[in-house]
Amino acid sequence: MCGKLWCRGGRSLGERKSNIRFFTSTWEGVASLAGFVVQGSNGEFPFLTSSERLEVVTRVRQALPRDKLLLAGSGCESTQATVEMTVSMAQVGADAAMVVTPCYYHGRMNSAALIHHYTKVADLSPIPVVLYSVPANTGLDLPVDAVVTLSQHPNIVGIKDSGGDVTRIGLIVHKTRRQDFQVLAGSAGFLLASYAVGAVGGVCALANVLGAQVCQLERLCLTGQWEDAQKLQHRLIEPNTAVTRRFGIPGLKKTMDWFGYYGGPCRAPLRELSADQEEALRLDFTSNGWL
Amino acid sequence: MCGKLWCRGGRSLGERKSNIRFFTSTWEGVASLAGFVVQGSNGEFPFLTSSERLEVVTRVRQALPRDKLLLAGSGCESTQATVEMTVSMAQVGADAAMVVTPCYYHGRMNSAALIHHYTKVADLSPIPVVLYSVPANTGLDLPVDAVVTLSQHPNIVGIKDSGGDVTRIGLIVHKTRRQDFQVLAGSAGFLLASYAVGAVGGVCALANVLGAQVCQLERLCLTGQWEDAQKLQHRLIEPNTAVTRRFGIPGLKKTMDWFGYYGGPCRAPLRELSADQEEALRLDFTSNGWL
Amino acid sequence: MCGKLWCRGGRSLGERKSNIRFFTSTWEGVASLAGFVVQGSNGEFPFLTSSERLEVVTRVRQALPRDKLLLAGSGCESTQATVEMTVSMAQVGADAAMVVTPCYYHGRMNSAALIHHYTKVADLSPIPVVLYSVPANTGLDLPVDAVVTLSQHPNIVGIKDSGGDVTRIGLIVHKTRRQDFQVLAGSAGFLLASYAVGAVGGVCALANVLGAQVCQLERLCLTGQWEDAQKLQHRLIEPNTAVTRRFGIPGLKKTMDWFGYYGGPCRAPLRELSADQEEALRLDFTSNGWL
Amino acid sequence: MCGKLWCRGGRSLGERKSNIRFFTSTWEGVASLAGFVVQGSNGEFPFLTSSERLEVVTRVRQALPRDKLLLAGSGCESTQATVEMTVSMAQVGADAAMVVTPCYYHGRMNSAALIHHYTKVADLSPIPVVLYSVPANTGLDLPVDAVVTLSQHPNIVGIKDSGGDVTRIGLIVHKTRRQDFQVLAGSAGFLLASYAVGAVGGVCALANVLGAQVCQLERLCLTGQWEDAQKLQHRLIEPNTAVTRRFGIPGLKKTMDWFGYYGGPCRAPLRELSADQEEALRLDFTSNGWL
Repeated sequence: MCGKLWCRGGRSLGERKSNIRFFTSTWEGVASLAGFVVQGSNGEFPFLTSSERLEVVTRVRQALPRDKLLLAGSGCESTQATVEMTVSMAQVGADAAMVVTPCYYHGRMNSAALIHHYTKVADLSPIPVVLYSVPANTGLDLPVDAVVTLSQHPNIVGIKDSGGDVTRIGLIVHKTRRQDFQVLAGSAGFLLASYAVGAVGGVCALANVLGAQVCQLERLCLTGQWEDAQKLQHRLIEPNTAVTRRFGIPGLKKTMDWFGYYGGPCRAPLRELSADQEEALRLDFTSNGWL
Repeated sequence: MCGKLWCRGGRSLGERKSNIRFFTSTWEGVASLAGFVVQGSNGEFPFLTSSERLEVVTRVRQALPRDKLLLAGSGCESTQATVEMTVSMAQVGADAAMVVTPCYYHGRMNSAALIHHYTKVADLSPIPVVLYSVPANTGLDLPVDAVVTLSQHPNIVGIKDSGGDVTRIGLIVHKTRRQDFQVLAGSAGFLLASYAVGAVGGVCALANVLGAQVCQLERLCLTGQWEDAQKLQHRLIEPNTAVTRRFGIPGLKKTMDWFGYYGGPCRAPLRELSADQEEALRLDFTSNGWL
Repeated sequence: MCGKLWCRGGRSLGERKSNIRFFTSTWEGVASLAGFVVQGSNGEFPFLTSSERLEVVTRVRQALPRDKLLLAGSGCESTQATVEMTVSMAQVGADAAMVVTPCYYHGRMNSAALIHHYTKVADLSPIPVVLYSVPANTGLDLPVDAVVTLSQHPNIVGIKDSGGDVTRIGLIVHKTRRQDFQVLAGSAGFLLASYAVGAVGGVCALANVLGAQVCQLERLCLTGQWEDAQKLQHRLIEPNTAVTRRFGIPGLKKTMDWFGYYGGPCRAPLRELSADQEEALRLDFTSNGWL
Repeated sequence: MCGKLWCRGGRSLGERKSNIRFFTSTWEGVASLAGFVVQGSNGEFPFLTSSERLEVVTRVRQALPRDKLLLAGSGCESTQATVEMTVSMAQVGADAAMVVTPCYYHGRMNSAALIHHYTKVADLSPIPVVLYSVPANTGLDLPVDAVVTLSQHPNIVGIKDSGGDVTRIGLIVHKTRRQDFQVLAGSAGFLLASYAVGAVGGVCALANVLGAQVCQLERLCLTGQWEDAQKLQHRLIEPNTAVTRRFGIPGLKKTMDWFGYYGGPCRAPLRELSADQEEALRLDFTSNGWL
């Protein structure tokens, strides 16, 4: 499961749980989210069957107020399967589709292949498409030149960039400025820096547990209160790393339990944290004043 | 599509095409293969639906003489899906299951997670399991200590190692010697070297086009004709690299067409080779006397 | 050769040329620099003999107004050699020493080894020490925990971080706040983002050619004019990448020639740019309005 | 410290200690070595001054029987310094120079740069030159096409390849066959496999402690006793990894002490092993029957 923040044109969408067995409808602290992303990387989507993937989106749509955007991860390895999943996601109520780069053959996924893939998906998708680059999982950075080309497609509205290279994020903003293309920080660790170089929102795993704080950081950035923003950003870095790179999905779920949400177990082959890991995870939150 | 060589206890199994639309029953030159692997990495399995995956195995089983082993790639991201696919593969006639490491969350796939995953699959599989480590695709080397532990499972019979690190291959042979565990070279580029350090077979993409030559190389190694083996090995390195790392599946399929098999198109997002790439691919075969 | 910007407590120091044969005393456009770094990575210091390294610093000291800081790169592979070079750099007039991580044995350069190394150097250095982490050259990121420990040493005053990971830069600022430790962005591509998360200056290869612009970007950040800063930052990303990662020292020197400075030839084994590369380099400047 | 094996035309050369303070003249067990390499990576050459580098070679030459080859590592970062060091090494008695790839600017070290560098060195060297590729230290694999071009230079006689990619080693042998170019395995972990694909010798850190065994492995390979060779190779893999990648120079020196040689301390910033590390190091030798 995993909740994320996404901000777009004053609307809001967010994420919650993609693993259907452990769904939660706890919304405290996330009222200010623009909406929800379902089945980003932390949603365990590779572990869900196609019907589970659709069922999660269906249920989230039912639970979600209409003024909250619902962004559904619909990426698959083949172009054909991605098209089909994207169409289905639209049918069950997704407002937009977030499409991760195919990755098993990442050695062959050059700009030409990726431009062809995303163009096909966007051509056939009834809802807007958001590109999704997450090299820690895929071994692949969606090349900047491909992003620039794809930003001109009328049905491709933005990118979630989880790589954390703020030089690259700034360059994407710079090169896509004319297209009203939305660049979203893919993690809370570099949210402030992304806003500083022109990103317009974030999709952050950390928002599952510190949703209000992530939204507050956004507001501080948008209203130019950079000094306060910096202080808050600093306190979010270690917790964010803890629930992503350091302890991953098991860490995020465990933390959700601590914060009164329902995190629940992971699907295998992911394993629960050891007692020592839990201790270290907790310290990353307590030492920054969050627990 | 994609044919591979696998040698085991004097029997033989090989691979042919996993992409059902382009299936071929051309067997010339591969009569000496121990059998066939269906849905190794070059079989485009990530692009097939579950039912397509099973249909390919079903058809190959029908076409394959009974004395040829049929090894089916049954790996999925979740343990549960892998178990189900493995059981289904057995039902449609696979002699053994080759299970690639889950990879989307490779940052969390430590020895403990992988041992748990493979043990579960092997416990529930009605057919023997072969581990499959292919870091170029998965970003993950199945750790040696995990291989050693898993080699003691009665239903895990071997590993296909495609990483090409012959020190590691030698160490795996050394540490699993007591378990009658079969180490298979995952690519023709290091087949001789793998035999030299104790591997007992190979699963080679190149066998789709130079199947007889790969089998000849095996025979030269097994009969101690190392000088001739070396000469043959040398001439296979560039063609092998060309149809794997350098030009990938599109290169392999194109070459199959040249050699009188049916390679056919790739599924998107894989792209066909450009004219320049085809030229370079051809040169890797002609300069070594194969075309 | 290569000039860099470093800002510290209102003072200024900058860099110019470490390759003694091609020394230049052209200062136009860099009057607002806090000072100069001599023998950062772009200064070709690994190609200089020990006496050349000292001679460059000596000459720059002579040419430099007293109100400009002179920061000398004094890193060597061994601790002993680094200590000796640092002491010598102080003797010929350096205000501070910038010490790159040893790198040939980077596999052994864990936190303990690096803490010991830098502590020894700082203990024996008559001038303040600045840590220098540049993974693109060294294959090594100075670990955050080592930076935090070293920040408590009375003679270690800051770090130049050239890795570009703004999450890491923010974390270092956060964890060293009590020590009045100065974090400097190591490249102009992420200068704005670094200021946004709390860096206090930059040491930028690009300042050799666009020194005034880099200083202007700094001022915009320091005075909270983030919108203008963003626009300027965007236009500096491609030129910066061009003179660093993309075309390296030959690109930087060529550009210096274009801007009326003396870049001059590189030392072998570095090679001059080809005509095509020069063309691409020029385009990165013209397309952003700098040439 | 650090002995290596090099075999060439029936002659022999080996290595011992490049760190002059800890020189040892213990030759037991290494009588069958073709000679010695002084200042390969394990010789701590980056920590030696230029005069120390020459003094070590001078003393080894004095101690070494005339029928043992002396190969001196003479690589520096700049082409000019490498030429000068190579000439000096020849003057103090080296039979050949082993030249590591420059590495600080490895991002710029393409084939053209490296071909120019080595050609210049070989043109001006009074003794034969051996290329040296060690990506674990340098972050750089000397490209195969550069090796092939350089193999045609009359004064470049071979390569020490420490990368461990046996496919690459086989390809280099294949492509340089006409030039009587000698390919040497750079580590004992893949010595047998290298011989199997056509290498003619090895330069192995492990030979500092298990010199007789490394020579025995070579003999078994050269005389076609592959089964015995395989058994011996297997028992050398873990000890070899222990004194190289796993515990590095401190591990090698500690082991030398155990085997009755003089290993002695490392130079900083290298650190001695902890008690736990020593324990693990010892286990890698005892579990394979060497201690």
